[in-house]
Amino acid sequence: MVKILNASKLKELLTIVFIKLGLPKDDAEIIADSLTLANLRGVDSHGLIRGLNFIEGIKLGDINTKPNVRIIYEDDIFTLYDGDRGIGIPVAYKATLKAIDKARKIGFGFSAVRNIWNVGMLAYYVMMIAKEGMIGISIANAKARMSIPGVHSAITGTNPIAIAIPTGNEPIVLDMALSVVALGKIVLAAKKGVNIPEGWATDKGGKITTDPKKALEGYLLPMGSYKGLGLAEVIDILCSALIGAPFGLEIKVERPYTQGGFIVSALKVDIFRDYQDFINDVSRYINTLKSLPRDSNVEILMPGEPEYRIYMQRVKDGIPIDDEVWKSFERVLNELGVKI
Amino acid sequence: MVKILNASKLKELLTIVFIKLGLPKDDAEIIADSLTLANLRGVDSHGLIRGLNFIEGIKLGDINTKPNVRIIYEDDIFTLYDGDRGIGIPVAYKATLKAIDKARKIGFGFSAVRNIWNVGMLAYYVMMIAKEGMIGISIANAKARMSIPGVHSAITGTNPIAIAIPTGNEPIVLDMALSVVALGKIVLAAKKGVNIPEGWATDKGGKITTDPKKALEGYLLPMGSYKGLGLAEVIDILCSALIGAPFGLEIKVERPYTQGGFIVSALKVDIFRDYQDFINDVSRYINTLKSLPRDSNVEILMPGEPEYRIYMQRVKDGIPIDDEVWKSFERVLNELGVKI
Repeated sequence: MVKILNASKLKELLTIVFIKLGLPKDDAEIIADSLTLANLRGVDSHGLIRGLNFIEGIKLGDINTKPNVRIIYEDDIFTLYDGDRGIGIPVAYKATLKAIDKARKIGFGFSAVRNIWNVGMLAYYVMMIAKEGMIGISIANAKARMSIPGVHSAITGTNPIAIAIPTGNEPIVLDMALSVVALGKIVLAAKKGVNIPEGWATDKGGKITTDPKKALEGYLLPMGSYKGLGLAEVIDILCSALIGAPFGLEIKVERPYTQGGFIVSALKVDIFRDYQDFINDVSRYINTLKSLPRDSNVEILMPGEPEYRIYMQRVKDGIPIDDEVWKSFERVLNELGVKI
Repeated sequence: MVKILNASKLKELLTIVFIKLGLPKDDAEIIADSLTLANLRGVDSHGLIRGLNFIEGIKLGDINTKPNVRIIYEDDIFTLYDGDRGIGIPVAYKATLKAIDKARKIGFGFSAVRNIWNVGMLAYYVMMIAKEGMIGISIANAKARMSIPGVHSAITGTNPIAIAIPTGNEPIVLDMALSVVALGKIVLAAKKGVNIPEGWATDKGGKITTDPKKALEGYLLPMGSYKGLGLAEVIDILCSALIGAPFGLEIKVERPYTQGGFIVSALKVDIFRDYQDFINDVSRYINTLKSLPRDSNVEILMPGEPEYRIYMQRVKDGIPIDDEVWKSFERVLNELGVKI
């Protein structure tokens, strides 16, 4: 059974819930917007499911609902925020606006955030930047749960990187974690009782496994082996040592959870050339790629295009929500006396 | 048969050769330095072998030996160079110094170069930046020869990314192309007449192949499948549309070859925190990773550490040079009347 919910309805419900849980209205709206956009784009792990994590964190007192967000440092390019243990999304949103503002003035803006809970889907921030006609780049470090064969521990997180590029139409949006697959796929295989392919994960002893249950006790494998691991390590360092946040192995697995750091940059595209020259070249790039010779059943999609298709469909038909997830959310709505 | 050559000897010979071929002394020295460092680090594809490509390009008149390198644009952060069809290395070197200079003043420097031949090993530039105690990030786009199954054409280049981070000791140096393996490994398999693993390449019809000869007519596969392809496409756009250079599919395969663009950034590490706090955290990071529990035959190396080990060994024992490569170089030395 799957519940179908209209996007504006989901956003409205989430906003009400977060307000009832004590968050300022502005923060609640931004969080609801980010989670809903994730669901609309088919990135369900960062949608309502993530919202339920936040709700649990608030109930347990781990999340500060009225954080005193402070700017620790600011100059012409750089801004550092302290999120005071609040949900990361509203602070990361502010940090993104600041980076856009700096970039508009000087060509480049770089904002960082520390001392926060999860920032949700990185695409949210870089898409904000692309909407302003600039290139957005964002990274975050996550709890360590990725490793390589032979190591009996996680090494680093799946540390995502997101890049959005304006095209004149829908932006190119790359948003990827650096593991071969998301943890969610292994969770799903475990639920279904089917094996996972070799190369997705190791068991806790560092042996490659096809048993999803052993994989869940173990570690995800990085995309591209040592290359993906190296990139994840570099992101881990940038999001910790550069800004004073914990690195992946320091992010606590047990309550009260901590989170890593978040970095977002905005880059103007008309520094060296006219804006329209850039847009024309990107359009030509996309058209060239899309018209390459190929098998009749193969299509060449730009990064973010699969998500955009799901977005268009879900805007029209609504967001399908897993029965289990919906029941959890209903329980929350009932507890808080929110009518659907 | 393998020739062993001392690094300073190789550098000296390369410098003399490039001067004899008409390059200014400063340019010849920088090119020789970059090529020799590549050989020292075991990145032989970007060492003397690359030098022989340059020499051929000069002889054929494709490379401008006395380029009129111009700064097209400059502000507090950004600089764009036109390389006037010279070898990319000396211009990229200047662009790197400029980025360092900007970063020292304002925290961040971003330089780009267009209208050049190959820039050699990206690690060269980011290591220059790390030596100054800053983070170096560099990207370049290359001739398209990477694709995905089902496509009967290359889509984009293996577009490398390099990042160096100062550690107080040897820097972390990530320098990776975005294909599963380098083309050189397939060339080697073809020479040896052995099959390549599935997942390295497709034939020219877009079918995954284990035949190295078919792979050489076909296309390399990206690391991490669509993730690596997406990252390569984004780099392709940044190195072309942003700076007015050609993208991977526009880079000519036939003479006169053209090349893509080059971007390098320097980022100060003491913007938000003290330099020493950053270094201490990076050291703690490295020590934490290196002491993780693991199989007795497994070692955890940071990015750049394998290359540094080869470097130390080759500084001591000399650089082994493939017989065929050495013979080609000897021919050049003889033609130019250079005594070994």
